[in-house]
Amino acid sequence: MSIVVEALGELLNFPETILSSPRTNDHGSHLHRGGAAAAMPADIIDAAKEYTFYVDVPGLSKSDIQVTVEEENTLVIKSNGKRKREDREEEGCKYIRLERRPPPQKLTRKFRLPENCNVSAVTAKCENGVLTVVVEKLPPPPKPKTVQVTIS
Amino acid sequence: MSIVVEALGELLNFPETILSSPRTNDHGSHLHRGGAAAAMPADIIDAAKEYTFYVDVPGLSKSDIQVTVEEENTLVIKSNGKRKREDREEEGCKYIRLERRPPPQKLTRKFRLPENCNVSAVTAKCENGVLTVVVEKLPPPPKPKTVQVTIS
Repeated sequence: MSIVVEALGELLNFPETILSSPRTNDHGSHLHRGGAAAAMPADIIDAAKEYTFYVDVPGLSKSDIQVTVEEENTLVIKSNGKRKREDREEEGCKYIRLERRPPPQKLTRKFRLPENCNVSAVTAKCENGVLTVVVEKLPPPPKPKTVQVTIS
Repeated sequence: MSIVVEALGELLNFPETILSSPRTNDHGSHLHRGGAAAAMPADIIDAAKEYTFYVDVPGLSKSDIQVTVEEENTLVIKSNGKRKREDREEEGCKYIRLERRPPPQKLTRKFRLPENCNVSAVTAKCENGVLTVVVEKLPPPPKPKTVQVTIS
């Protein structure tokens, strides 16, 4: 998927694929990206029994965030826009430094979950500005039995 | 101050000047920077009665952060390194996405406060991964009186 298609997908709010994504960086360094991903950057861990999403949402509390599973396999994380850059309207009041990421305002990130996810076993918590979402994996399907046939 | 001098200053942990800093962006957009500033990015507001620092520290709680004023005029913000990227040592466990900033580990940011700061009136709070530090300003010195002398 090219950068343009990827950007278009984000614009149209298509779910992102979490596996084999071109955005994945195998070398352990983090990525700088635009849009919703910049405002709500996510790390995703693929473990034996679950996928874990860690999303930075500094300034947002539990009540500012909504986590749902839509269309059977799409994890949707919404921020309700309560976090705003602190507006100060006083006279002579100005920002003399701006290093923080732009605040997430009514942003949505969608992740298409792999087939092996148990979407009825999703848990989420929000603590110190980090949202953690755990999606359990379904047990792997039993391996087809191999029946040894004795050749007479 | 050139980029090299600035980088060297950060390396040697010199306090940063908050006023007339080359890092300040007057156009309202945020800056991507390296080192401590990337891990603990700060916005600073200059208001009539105080300076307010907003520092993103997602994943850190109040007890993970120390705020002090050193050498009379240097605001020091330390993270004690408790936030680590979530290490998972299980077999077959891997990061499939890494978008978040590298976590602050035993990082220190120092800001040289302007002369008009009342360093005995500094307050700080940490909520939802955002540290807010308010430094009150001293009242401006009284203007020298102008005595009108009548010319006879």
